[in-house]
Amino acid sequence: MSGEEEMNGPPPRGFPTAEFEARLERAQRLMAQADWDALLLTTEPEVRWFSGFHTLFWLSPTRPWFLVVPRAGKPVAVVPEIGAPVMARTWIEDIRSWPAPRPADDGLGLLDQALRELAGPRGRIGLPMGHESTLRMPLADYGRLKAGLPEARFGDATPLVRALRRVKSEREIAKVAWACRIASGAFGALPAWLAEGLSLAEVFRGFRRDLLARGADDVPYLVGAAGAEGYEDVISPPGEEPLRRGDVVMMDTGATFDGYYCDFDRNLALGTAGDRARRAYETLWRATEAGLAAVRPGETCAGLFRVMASVIEAEGYRAGNVGRFGHGLGMQLTEPPSNAAWDDTVLEPGMVLTLEPGLSFAPGLGQVHEENLVVRAEGAELLSRRAPPELPVI
Amino acid sequence: MSGEEEMNGPPPRGFPTAEFEARLERAQRLMAQADWDALLLTTEPEVRWFSGFHTLFWLSPTRPWFLVVPRAGKPVAVVPEIGAPVMARTWIEDIRSWPAPRPADDGLGLLDQALRELAGPRGRIGLPMGHESTLRMPLADYGRLKAGLPEARFGDATPLVRALRRVKSEREIAKVAWACRIASGAFGALPAWLAEGLSLAEVFRGFRRDLLARGADDVPYLVGAAGAEGYEDVISPPGEEPLRRGDVVMMDTGATFDGYYCDFDRNLALGTAGDRARRAYETLWRATEAGLAAVRPGETCAGLFRVMASVIEAEGYRAGNVGRFGHGLGMQLTEPPSNAAWDDTVLEPGMVLTLEPGLSFAPGLGQVHEENLVVRAEGAELLSRRAPPELPVI
Repeated sequence: MSGEEEMNGPPPRGFPTAEFEARLERAQRLMAQADWDALLLTTEPEVRWFSGFHTLFWLSPTRPWFLVVPRAGKPVAVVPEIGAPVMARTWIEDIRSWPAPRPADDGLGLLDQALRELAGPRGRIGLPMGHESTLRMPLADYGRLKAGLPEARFGDATPLVRALRRVKSEREIAKVAWACRIASGAFGALPAWLAEGLSLAEVFRGFRRDLLARGADDVPYLVGAAGAEGYEDVISPPGEEPLRRGDVVMMDTGATFDGYYCDFDRNLALGTAGDRARRAYETLWRATEAGLAAVRPGETCAGLFRVMASVIEAEGYRAGNVGRFGHGLGMQLTEPPSNAAWDDTVLEPGMVLTLEPGLSFAPGLGQVHEENLVVRAEGAELLSRRAPPELPVI
Repeated sequence: MSGEEEMNGPPPRGFPTAEFEARLERAQRLMAQADWDALLLTTEPEVRWFSGFHTLFWLSPTRPWFLVVPRAGKPVAVVPEIGAPVMARTWIEDIRSWPAPRPADDGLGLLDQALRELAGPRGRIGLPMGHESTLRMPLADYGRLKAGLPEARFGDATPLVRALRRVKSEREIAKVAWACRIASGAFGALPAWLAEGLSLAEVFRGFRRDLLARGADDVPYLVGAAGAEGYEDVISPPGEEPLRRGDVVMMDTGATFDGYYCDFDRNLALGTAGDRARRAYETLWRATEAGLAAVRPGETCAGLFRVMASVIEAEGYRAGNVGRFGHGLGMQLTEPPSNAAWDDTVLEPGMVLTLEPGLSFAPGLGQVHEENLVVRAEGAELLSRRAPPELPVI
């Protein structure tokens, strides 16, 4: 059963304080095990996960934002003055701010002081430094921070932060599910207005407007491709050329609700569909079906990859150029883990994943499918409305 | 005269190869002066400025992207396979790719090789490390890269990259101008439908849809605030509470056209406006007017700040919490320089700036205005349609 059927209206926005308390308790248990005295977080999803601090202002690269999570006690925010009123409405109490931007000391003095208080001058301070992470502060400032705390030990807390974030709460899942429901509705309406002669640019514009009308807060991600029989490049801006009869059109969207993403695509053919496109579609649909059937706690991401790859290879196809067959999903369009041969992450209830098998059947020609799901004790619960088993021709 | 009057349709998308050749020539002249053997670029605007590589896929944090600019010869792209087809459509010829994500070697081997070839094993390699910059790759991978090139010297190329990007070409200016024109139109239409009883969330949804209908490619940034007489927090997501008579509503948008932003706001009062809101509005309008009159080549950003601040302070107000009175604008919503007392950047023809004076007149109550302009030999050319001199009451 799809979660979609159960929802009559959007889930409540935000999270109760109890949820942040539970997150912090989980974090501090893991911090004690790994012997971190403090975590230093600089990116939007990590700061939001711990604090609830939610703003589009992260789009402006000018100012750094810091959250320090101590091994005991509540997190401390070190943030630009412009964000202090928003932070003050979260459950965070200790908020230190400065009139940013101020290149001579853009929060470094306050951050140094907070780390000294919370971790001690010889503390062990964890930051995400591993795969898929970024340090969102100037590299030169990070060097200055370390030089000012010469006895502190800065290390990689990527495994801890991943372990915390990869299992979603029911409130988080409900937000992803609502974004998926909105996008499922917009995809469902597409055959009624998508037509030859429109350009992909016009189609994107209309699709974004429809997503907003259906309740998406934003459509940060919308890519697609169109071509006779198939496509190769799946990440370009849309072209101005008119769509033609026989084109296979793929659209892939990350729409958001309350700061949580959906991320799935749909393929359609205009007027008629070639045999190669139909056969690729049916193969990917069955690969996805096999992946969905394999989802259960205890299975691994590498296992999901192999299940999908075996369907594709049995038909004589090569895998596409995406590098994996799906990934985690939540506050970011793509999150760890990866459904890839190298990722042995074990599935747990509450993990939200995409299944995204892709294949190539000729130079420059391929297809990609994608669905979104949450791992439940009994298996996969679909969050996206399942694509039809045969390539829709409209 | 506003640039808006001259434009009858959207400017062409993309840039001719000659523009990238000219950019590279400027870059390599500065690289020779500063004795850099290569630049290593990892973030979207820098990679796009040199290559024309344009995709929304940067939103996915999973994969790193690298562009190496040598002191002579064309840049070399080291990018994930999923992006190679898009990169191949730019003027870049040497494109090296790997099946990312691949945590064991996520492009590092290829990048090491490219730096050895282009800068030499003892080369001087410049990266943006300074204010407003981020290194968009895992910190641990950056450490590995440096360890693998023990004799190379990695240093801060922020001043060089800023000098290149802060003066825009006419083609870049035309894209910002078109985004401004679209947003000016949407703001102009707002009084016809903005009304008491709507929530700010509903207003945002309608405003985004209108921007898209008018030709915006996307609306990555839309923030706002509403309150009796004024507001303090200017970066929050919109609330669900109905707007009320007497509210001052501020909306600030960064809509894009072909990857270039506008960034300006408008203030409106619903039904009636209090004296404090009117007076704050008129003061900020005059501060902006003084800023516009002061814009000319040779003036400094600090000078613009002082001109605007003196109007605000003469009325007995304090500056707001934004930390500056405007900034650079282009491929990013906010770019250097800053109109702030600490920024002595000298204005040059072709710089695109916002003027953004703000003030506070009581705890939690203030106002912010913003306009967009390009610096011309003869002074400021407005890109946004100028706000009216008195607070509009609708």
